Amino acid sequence: MKLSKEPYKGTRDFYPEDEFVQKYMFNTMRKAVERFGYAEYDASLLEETALYKAKTGEEIVNEQTYSFVDRGQREVTIRPEMTPTVARMVARKRLELAFPLRWYAIPNLWRYERPQRGRLREHWQLNVDMFGDNSILADAEIISVAGAIMKKFGAKKTDFEVHLNNRKLLTAVAREYCGCDEARAYKLFKLIDRRHKMDDDKFFAEAQALLGDKTEKLKIYLQSKTLADLPAELVQNAGVLELKQLFKILAEQGVANVVFDASLMRGFDYYTGNVFEVYDTDVKNRRAMFGGGRYDDLVGIFEVPPVTGIGFGMGDVTMRDFLEAHNLLPQYQPTAQVYLCVLEVGVQGFANELAVFLRQQGINVAVDYTGHKIGKQIQTADKQKIPYVICVGEDEAKNREFKIKQLVSGKENIVIWDDLPKFSFKS
Amino acid sequence: MKLSKEPYKGTRDFYPEDEFVQKYMFNTMRKAVERFGYAEYDASLLEETALYKAKTGEEIVNEQTYSFVDRGQREVTIRPEMTPTVARMVARKRLELAFPLRWYAIPNLWRYERPQRGRLREHWQLNVDMFGDNSILADAEIISVAGAIMKKFGAKKTDFEVHLNNRKLLTAVAREYCGCDEARAYKLFKLIDRRHKMDDDKFFAEAQALLGDKTEKLKIYLQSKTLADLPAELVQNAGVLELKQLFKILAEQGVANVVFDASLMRGFDYYTGNVFEVYDTDVKNRRAMFGGGRYDDLVGIFEVPPVTGIGFGMGDVTMRDFLEAHNLLPQYQPTAQVYLCVLEVGVQGFANELAVFLRQQGINVAVDYTGHKIGKQIQTADKQKIPYVICVGEDEAKNREFKIKQLVSGKENIVIWDDLPKFSFKS
Repeated sequence: MKLSKEPYKGTRDFYPEDEFVQKYMFNTMRKAVERFGYAEYDASLLEETALYKAKTGEEIVNEQTYSFVDRGQREVTIRPEMTPTVARMVARKRLELAFPLRWYAIPNLWRYERPQRGRLREHWQLNVDMFGDNSILADAEIISVAGAIMKKFGAKKTDFEVHLNNRKLLTAVAREYCGCDEARAYKLFKLIDRRHKMDDDKFFAEAQALLGDKTEKLKIYLQSKTLADLPAELVQNAGVLELKQLFKILAEQGVANVVFDASLMRGFDYYTGNVFEVYDTDVKNRRAMFGGGRYDDLVGIFEVPPVTGIGFGMGDVTMRDFLEAHNLLPQYQPTAQVYLCVLEVGVQGFANELAVFLRQQGINVAVDYTGHKIGKQIQTADKQKIPYVICVGEDEAKNREFKIKQLVSGKENIVIWDDLPKFSFKS
Repeated sequence: MKLSKEPYKGTRDFYPEDEFVQKYMFNTMRKAVERFGYAEYDASLLEETALYKAKTGEEIVNEQTYSFVDRGQREVTIRPEMTPTVARMVARKRLELAFPLRWYAIPNLWRYERPQRGRLREHWQLNVDMFGDNSILADAEIISVAGAIMKKFGAKKTDFEVHLNNRKLLTAVAREYCGCDEARAYKLFKLIDRRHKMDDDKFFAEAQALLGDKTEKLKIYLQSKTLADLPAELVQNAGVLELKQLFKILAEQGVANVVFDASLMRGFDYYTGNVFEVYDTDVKNRRAMFGGGRYDDLVGIFEVPPVTGIGFGMGDVTMRDFLEAHNLLPQYQPTAQVYLCVLEVGVQGFANELAVFLRQQGINVAVDYTGHKIGKQIQTADKQKIPYVICVGEDEAKNREFKIKQLVSGKENIVIWDDLPKFSFKS
């Protein structure tokens, strides 16, 4: 059988130029969140399947996870999201840890789904979480952190918009306002979560099947553009008060690109309070890029004293699309700054000495030991986008004087050995 | 059913203090290999199982991999090693890439095995590879890179030793010298690979069953401490010549801690030339920490024009053990440099302004919005090992003057707002 050269379906190979972008994104995220004191953690890729059955959501666990039985008959799952893992870690050291905790991670996550734009089977996701602070200031900070990352990427405030809603409000809409029992409320949540994937006719037809004559009330609720538009029955709801506080704090902090979004739900079952999503405001790409929310009951499922949580996840595929669309990706810079081309086998030893010397000056140097013709060696440097080449032959070995060529400009500098430390190999 | 708080068997949770060590190790590796011009790549965690059936080795694939059938009936495996993946990536862009390539990655790898010291089910491994240069200088460079990483970690040359052997020599020992056919040669290789796990009696009893009266010859070969000790029948072997060249180049480059090791084999089937392992010289921990070798036929299995390869893998578990044993691990430094403790709810807004200002100066600042008593807030900073705290109350908000306390020394500095940019928050 012929071996496939392609990566597994729905996944990506990251050649150095692709990995350069990944590293740029992850390091930018790291710098932004570390300014707020968040500390990086990590964990195993596999977890026992039971962890996700509790709160991730039925559809995801039953249809979209990579689950299997290991050689010791344990049911295991490749993590589809990080929040259950981090909640488990907090629960595991519940009594040793000092709260509030500010933690982040950039794990790869797996979902079995049909690959499509913005959706792959494997993606990486920045996870930023705060545990043990249930104040609305914590909610505001989490949204500020999301904004700080966007800013660090070079996005303008007008390039994105934060949508807000609250699970307590949504629960009141389903239960008291529309009269659902718990099971129907759950179905209504799943329906609202899929709203953007269907047209209004289909959406309200499905709502009608669930709610009957209460569908009109749902319609009124969903038409609310701001908190002030909400039906009178809902304005005293605890979720509305949380949203009002959050809007007030964000306004005080100068965060203006925030709107109420009545149909914002978020997919996971574990959210309990404010939830948010960040939208690209570009008309060509108007969609939710990432989001998160408050989940105050998740650590408690491990039968430890409860700890409140709030956080968000930012995926690499969507962010890369955004940065590309807004022309915010940096130009590729290879690792090697100088490529030493070697004219004769007899001077390979000398070329290596030169490389050792340059590396001692903090320069990244690769040497071509192949014995290829010099033109081919230079071509290798050029194709790998290495900015400078030095050709080393017997003359160079004897005179210890080198012609440093910048490939992109063709510019050449003659530099003697002792002056090499002063030469700037900037691209 | 009670949910487990423990990580999946044979894996680790990396709390911030653990992740700090991981990041230190990975970043040190990155810096060392990038000096030699190696560029980082990455790939999917899952590959089709067929990829490993070709050259990884039967025992590993049949008994030690995490393999399963996906929801689309594809046989897939969580990567047990990275070399097949990188060979696949090189083959995939065989015609576009310019050689030699210098690539590295730090993937997590999975093996189903009984967890024990130095062996876990999930570990991370630096992989450093060069493709398209079959000169012995490339072999020497790969060993230099391994040495450069050890040096960057602060290890002395006397702390480790490089063991060398060659697969061409080992093949000649099995085939011509001991008269094995291909199947018995394969078994002999697997036996030699397990030699350090058994005593001499058991080893030679198993050798006797394979080789009969040729066992004495194997014994003579294995007694060779240097290339000069090798039986006359073997000295003209191509592998011996490659080893001699490699010893010569390493000596010229000043690499002295290198020895011939007749029983060094390496587990994978794909090696074709020089192979090496780096040993800890500490008598309490005398064991192979990591290794690699030349594999010139691996890219060719994808039915593209062949490309030679050489590389090594360095695992995080073994390296961490080494660094701990040699007292080379750095002290933990948390992300946050300053913790703002807030005395009254009324000044939380001001504390946030102060945090924003400090962050603009490049300081990592966390704010306590919990409303906990001040002693508890300071305790949080202390338990999280954050070096400095500033308590913010109404006086501070009014006077814009702050007492910056270094927790470890108890030392306090009074600094006004305008002078904050000049204060050094070093731990």
